[in-house]
Amino acid sequence: MSFEIPALDKTATSVIQQRINLKTKPLGALGVLEDLALQLALLQSKTQNSDKLAIDKPVLLIFAADHGINSHGISIAPSAVTQQMVSNFLAGGAAANCFCRSNQIELRVVDAGLLQPLSDAVGLIQQSLGCGTADFSQGPAMTLAQVEAGLALGRHAARQELLAGCDLLLLGEMGIANTSSAAALLAALTDLPLHTCVGRGTGISDQQFELKCALIQQALQRPYSKQPLSILAEFGGFEIVQLCGAILGAAAMQKPVLIDGFIVSVAALFACAIAPNCRDYLLFAHQGAEAGHKAVLTALNATALLHLGLRLGEGTGAALAVPLVKAAISFYNDMASFADAGVTQVVEPHNAADGAVQ
Amino acid sequence: MSFEIPALDKTATSVIQQRINLKTKPLGALGVLEDLALQLALLQSKTQNSDKLAIDKPVLLIFAADHGINSHGISIAPSAVTQQMVSNFLAGGAAANCFCRSNQIELRVVDAGLLQPLSDAVGLIQQSLGCGTADFSQGPAMTLAQVEAGLALGRHAARQELLAGCDLLLLGEMGIANTSSAAALLAALTDLPLHTCVGRGTGISDQQFELKCALIQQALQRPYSKQPLSILAEFGGFEIVQLCGAILGAAAMQKPVLIDGFIVSVAALFACAIAPNCRDYLLFAHQGAEAGHKAVLTALNATALLHLGLRLGEGTGAALAVPLVKAAISFYNDMASFADAGVTQVVEPHNAADGAVQ
Repeated sequence: MSFEIPALDKTATSVIQQRINLKTKPLGALGVLEDLALQLALLQSKTQNSDKLAIDKPVLLIFAADHGINSHGISIAPSAVTQQMVSNFLAGGAAANCFCRSNQIELRVVDAGLLQPLSDAVGLIQQSLGCGTADFSQGPAMTLAQVEAGLALGRHAARQELLAGCDLLLLGEMGIANTSSAAALLAALTDLPLHTCVGRGTGISDQQFELKCALIQQALQRPYSKQPLSILAEFGGFEIVQLCGAILGAAAMQKPVLIDGFIVSVAALFACAIAPNCRDYLLFAHQGAEAGHKAVLTALNATALLHLGLRLGEGTGAALAVPLVKAAISFYNDMASFADAGVTQVVEPHNAADGAVQ
Repeated sequence: MSFEIPALDKTATSVIQQRINLKTKPLGALGVLEDLALQLALLQSKTQNSDKLAIDKPVLLIFAADHGINSHGISIAPSAVTQQMVSNFLAGGAAANCFCRSNQIELRVVDAGLLQPLSDAVGLIQQSLGCGTADFSQGPAMTLAQVEAGLALGRHAARQELLAGCDLLLLGEMGIANTSSAAALLAALTDLPLHTCVGRGTGISDQQFELKCALIQQALQRPYSKQPLSILAEFGGFEIVQLCGAILGAAAMQKPVLIDGFIVSVAALFACAIAPNCRDYLLFAHQGAEAGHKAVLTALNATALLHLGLRLGEGTGAALAVPLVKAAISFYNDMASFADAGVTQVVEPHNAADGAVQ
């Protein structure tokens, strides 16, 4: 399988930056929204006829799957809750549904590998890789063939949405015990110390946390290939593999992807390891308290838009960040320049000490 | 002048908290949005017939005024820019306008004390306290009578909006050099060391920063009464005094107020010093990089919703936070409970070590 991701054309950077700098505000005064506007303008500069940016159809794809490692009781919840929450998404009752309605985002749910399939569920995208992964503390979570199938299925799901008009792809996940998988994946790919990668997920006890760390440590000690796809087979989750494929698929189409929390960020790290050009198409919605989240964002050289203390997943952080994306577009499109508004343009002071523009 | 602010009735706290805890999510997994929902539910519990929360008409009031201390050139911009930006607001071209349009917020502008009034400007709320304050490094910025008039005018402006149906009052400001005034006010009221209160505003040079600190330090050394209203007279800005009045006015009507950046937070600190019951009616939108902002939020025991590196004022942070307020309402109103959704309710583990629920 090849993943050809076009490099983002950045030749318009200085023109876009100048447009931002001539808006009626001090240089840089809109903080991270200015970086966001620049990235969106670069992403849309080749695909838009107008010089106005637009995000008209954001869609959240939630990939759900179960994890064999949860047989050790290292989450606060039994694996059955993954399927129950899928039903909750389909019925419109979860937090992700509320935030999507609040911010005019469409929501779809993918069975990427539920322990107990919901074969008759209306609206569920059925592309399961199996009834939960194998317990990765004992051996590989899945086969390399499953990884490759999962990447293709994730890419397919993303392409379907983008071909149907989605212009901002939000990614979320549901999978009891998937912080264990994500922590192991992060530690294996980056060689970071385990304690910087493992956290308490949605709130486990001290005893569960010790067991979680011990199981992951044990798994990391067996021999495995350090290729990204092999690491995914060793420690991955079916939803994580499909998320990785979705990111690769959207980046191949040069569309922006809004990354949710820890789990999706780890999927993004793997997508960038497989195809580094991916990185330019990614926006990061939320940084939570989970230990590894900071580490993975650092590895991706990413700054999240929101810091709300969420620890839910589901794409909730991504859904909450959409109004900031739209706000960045709004100022880029419609804010007056100094000349338009007759406002005195401030010449920024130079400091003798560093010669830099403040 | 008396400021009778009713204490917020918190008797419904445990009922509201239980409703939040029974939603289909781990305890506390929606982070600061849960605190926000609790506060909004307490605020609306006595005024709503339904048990559904609603914010249907947010309005941003921007108070603008000039500062005598800017004659020393301690801002990046001349005072004329305050008036120019007021015209920009009225024409719809500023960042605040863009974010208000993006998030369906009405915007009004108040002349609280422009150096050069815009007497014919359509739509401008004219309640100027004078053509800019006196230079507070040389003597009091204004008289106590002006402070009292400003508090009454600010209260009046807030009441007008709330009586017209506004159900979330956003406050913003425009005033070249007003970070100098806010820093002096903060240092005088709290006795914090000056270096924790003064920052570089929208981006001044090292030389300007040294002069700014020296002028404020000099002002703080003269004798003055430590009563809040006297401190406002010594170092205040006309927009800051009116903001303080607007906060007091909204709190008196038990309506929620969404506080913007450093300047408005200092106004909030004075409102709470004048009438401590104010605090329960305040939501904090954004924490920026300005040195004193962290100090004033700490003094208010407040956590801001957003951290976007904004340094613009105008109410931009408040406007950007409105979708989070609406999202908190959305999950509180519409998210399914464990029982509704047939999701297994997780019993949170107790840790032997601390006995606390994780």
